[in-house]
Amino acid sequence: MLFCRQATRLRLAPRLVHARRTYADLNAPAAKKLKINADRLWDDIHMTAKWSEPNATTEAGGLSRLSGTIYDKYARDWFKDTVKALGAKTYAVNGTGSQFATFEGENNSLPPIAMGSHLDSVATGGRFDGPLGVIGGIEVLRSMQEQGIKTHAPIALINWTNEEGAKFFPFLGSSVVYAGQSTLEAAYASKANDGSGETLGAALQAIGYVGDGPNTFEEFPISGHFEIHCEQQTVLEKANKPVGWVEGWQGIDYYEMVFTGEDGHANTYPMERRKDSLVGASKLIVELESLPKAHGSGYTTMTNIQSGPIGCCNIQSWTKLVFCLMNYDAKVLGSMGADITARGKAIAQAAGLGFSSELLVHLEPGQFWPEAVDCVKRACGDKGIGACTETAHDSTMTRLKCPTAMVFARGKDGVSHNAKEWTSKEDCAESALVLGKAVLNFDEILKNKK
Amino acid sequence: MLFCRQATRLRLAPRLVHARRTYADLNAPAAKKLKINADRLWDDIHMTAKWSEPNATTEAGGLSRLSGTIYDKYARDWFKDTVKALGAKTYAVNGTGSQFATFEGENNSLPPIAMGSHLDSVATGGRFDGPLGVIGGIEVLRSMQEQGIKTHAPIALINWTNEEGAKFFPFLGSSVVYAGQSTLEAAYASKANDGSGETLGAALQAIGYVGDGPNTFEEFPISGHFEIHCEQQTVLEKANKPVGWVEGWQGIDYYEMVFTGEDGHANTYPMERRKDSLVGASKLIVELESLPKAHGSGYTTMTNIQSGPIGCCNIQSWTKLVFCLMNYDAKVLGSMGADITARGKAIAQAAGLGFSSELLVHLEPGQFWPEAVDCVKRACGDKGIGACTETAHDSTMTRLKCPTAMVFARGKDGVSHNAKEWTSKEDCAESALVLGKAVLNFDEILKNKK
Repeated sequence: MLFCRQATRLRLAPRLVHARRTYADLNAPAAKKLKINADRLWDDIHMTAKWSEPNATTEAGGLSRLSGTIYDKYARDWFKDTVKALGAKTYAVNGTGSQFATFEGENNSLPPIAMGSHLDSVATGGRFDGPLGVIGGIEVLRSMQEQGIKTHAPIALINWTNEEGAKFFPFLGSSVVYAGQSTLEAAYASKANDGSGETLGAALQAIGYVGDGPNTFEEFPISGHFEIHCEQQTVLEKANKPVGWVEGWQGIDYYEMVFTGEDGHANTYPMERRKDSLVGASKLIVELESLPKAHGSGYTTMTNIQSGPIGCCNIQSWTKLVFCLMNYDAKVLGSMGADITARGKAIAQAAGLGFSSELLVHLEPGQFWPEAVDCVKRACGDKGIGACTETAHDSTMTRLKCPTAMVFARGKDGVSHNAKEWTSKEDCAESALVLGKAVLNFDEILKNKK
Repeated sequence: MLFCRQATRLRLAPRLVHARRTYADLNAPAAKKLKINADRLWDDIHMTAKWSEPNATTEAGGLSRLSGTIYDKYARDWFKDTVKALGAKTYAVNGTGSQFATFEGENNSLPPIAMGSHLDSVATGGRFDGPLGVIGGIEVLRSMQEQGIKTHAPIALINWTNEEGAKFFPFLGSSVVYAGQSTLEAAYASKANDGSGETLGAALQAIGYVGDGPNTFEEFPISGHFEIHCEQQTVLEKANKPVGWVEGWQGIDYYEMVFTGEDGHANTYPMERRKDSLVGASKLIVELESLPKAHGSGYTTMTNIQSGPIGCCNIQSWTKLVFCLMNYDAKVLGSMGADITARGKAIAQAAGLGFSSELLVHLEPGQFWPEAVDCVKRACGDKGIGACTETAHDSTMTRLKCPTAMVFARGKDGVSHNAKEWTSKEDCAESALVLGKAVLNFDEILKNKK
């Protein structure tokens, strides 16, 4: 699967001219009225964190809710009950388990403006990465209802399935289908990273979350997509800003490389007659770590190693590696890929090993829709700053189809995918307020277009 | 668990003086009469190979019969039926699933002379490593009965459980308890190498092979233990000898080393803030490969790597390695262990990683009992040559308790734990003949002792 092989050509919105007025003054009238219940949002983030695999992460105050597990089911059930209690006009579960709820606006002939993120986490996650985006959306809806704020367009709230890809590969497991970058069948067949052969589809079936709801943008068009996410860096923290607007993202390539050697007895084979795939793979892991330095920028991470025969008595005859390369420069990203592939080949050749390489995912670096980003920017006002995300989100998929922007919430020390991930109550509330205001700003644009 | 921390002090048998007569002439009268049915032995080796996990190994003519699997059960059932059909006086299954059958001799007050090996294989095994030792023993019993050869002492035939340790660690899973080097409880709790948490005990329970038979030498004393095994090297092949007597073994140490880092997002962490356990572990794997050269002798093999969090979105925060060091020199073996431990510590320290190291198994290099080896040597006559084994066998355990020796069968190219492992029909038969003759030679010694 390749995401966005060709960079989407974005229409550039004309720059807004604002002389004496602050940027925040440019918010839609409804946006100016919106308030958020910080306690309620905070309580829901921590209450729902009980649906988590009990392990060291949970003990440390984090969250371990892999997609397709029983804990994922409990969180989904809560989402369903909550949106129904809020009076959702429609509620549907699609073929990859994503949950879609819609709420009426004044003009229900318009496609809804969506707020969406994910309730799944990585195995060693914090409580904010994902849940803040969904629960923040719920809080926006609750507040709007309480404050009598009625939108022009309908609103959609989406809980996207398997954003993380922590258990089943690839990540963005459902939004990738929505954006036409993969098929329902391929997503359903997403395989477990542990090599067990378990599939996302079977796991979703087991928890009762395979439905007949819309799978693609064409089946469920939306006017725009807005998402809160923890920053996962320190730009906001260093600038002393609680929120931010997300301008773009760095490019990411995932590769799978397989070294193959020969089966042989662990104790009896002299060193010179071995074809040990794990030794070859280890040399590549060491090279991968030095790759960013060699190319002057970017990051690399070896995310998965599987080697066999598993046991205590065999020379390793196959080793499978999955890793990612990151760079803001598409050209350098490509060079890093070509370089590490060449190094893998050279290592294999020198050791008489078989070698194969496959580009599993390609995410071109890019930028969100300026008109949507501007809605977030106005919502942030003086409290925000622009930043880029260094990873992929469901919004990275929706932006292929419709105006999309993201809200950053300040995190602590850039810690992410770790139980110590942290965003304060105040910053969570601020990000939800920005989300709601951004949606209302965007709604104002739609209203004025009529 | 530590095997044989102190080297057993072996009693040295007086050297036999034999002037004009060939060594083969020194066999016991009964041994001189014994013949083997080569076709029957060969057919049973290949017929029983059908009880195998169907995979690439099986397709290539090999055997994939992990201990505790349903295929292991089928092979065990056949062993039980076969020894019963041969008129076994006693048949028992012990707490770790080992099968013991005894056959009457003239003086049943003596502990039996045992023939034993294993019917389990590695996942990528050939058809001879293990099965030849057990089926060879069956063939000896059948031939003795047909040829009216009655032993003085009773004979035992043993199918030892989990010799390979391919699925559950440690290897020699039952004979280690028999020799008092581990406990029944520890063997029962032997954990799967894949980290799944499955235990040998539960697997044996599931196939109905946990019994109340004897677990230790003290509960089931034997007069001696003889075992055929494929050579797994090329000494016999190069000397153009079909069989050999095994003089001793090289020392083997198994270590587990764990590197611990910190959980973190795979895409968003700059290189300088990572604590990546897999990078540290990979550096150690590369160092391990060069260790024998640094110490002038020995082999090393990284046999298992498990790393997590398993997925596509995390920096690896824990990596567990299991590897073995081999050397004929106990002192050098110890130096290799100290060296690689120091290298692991240094790698961890430089990268800010946690590090732990544990010696899981220590097998001191040593030699089999001269009086038992001599029985094999006489049985080989001119067709044999002396050699050492480079790995551990159930006989490496029984020799802690009683006279023990092994028979080597010539293999092809030293290939082992590989579907291409090969011993010809003629060489299989020759090794079974040597096994039978050695047992009869040893029986003669026991008879003369009365």
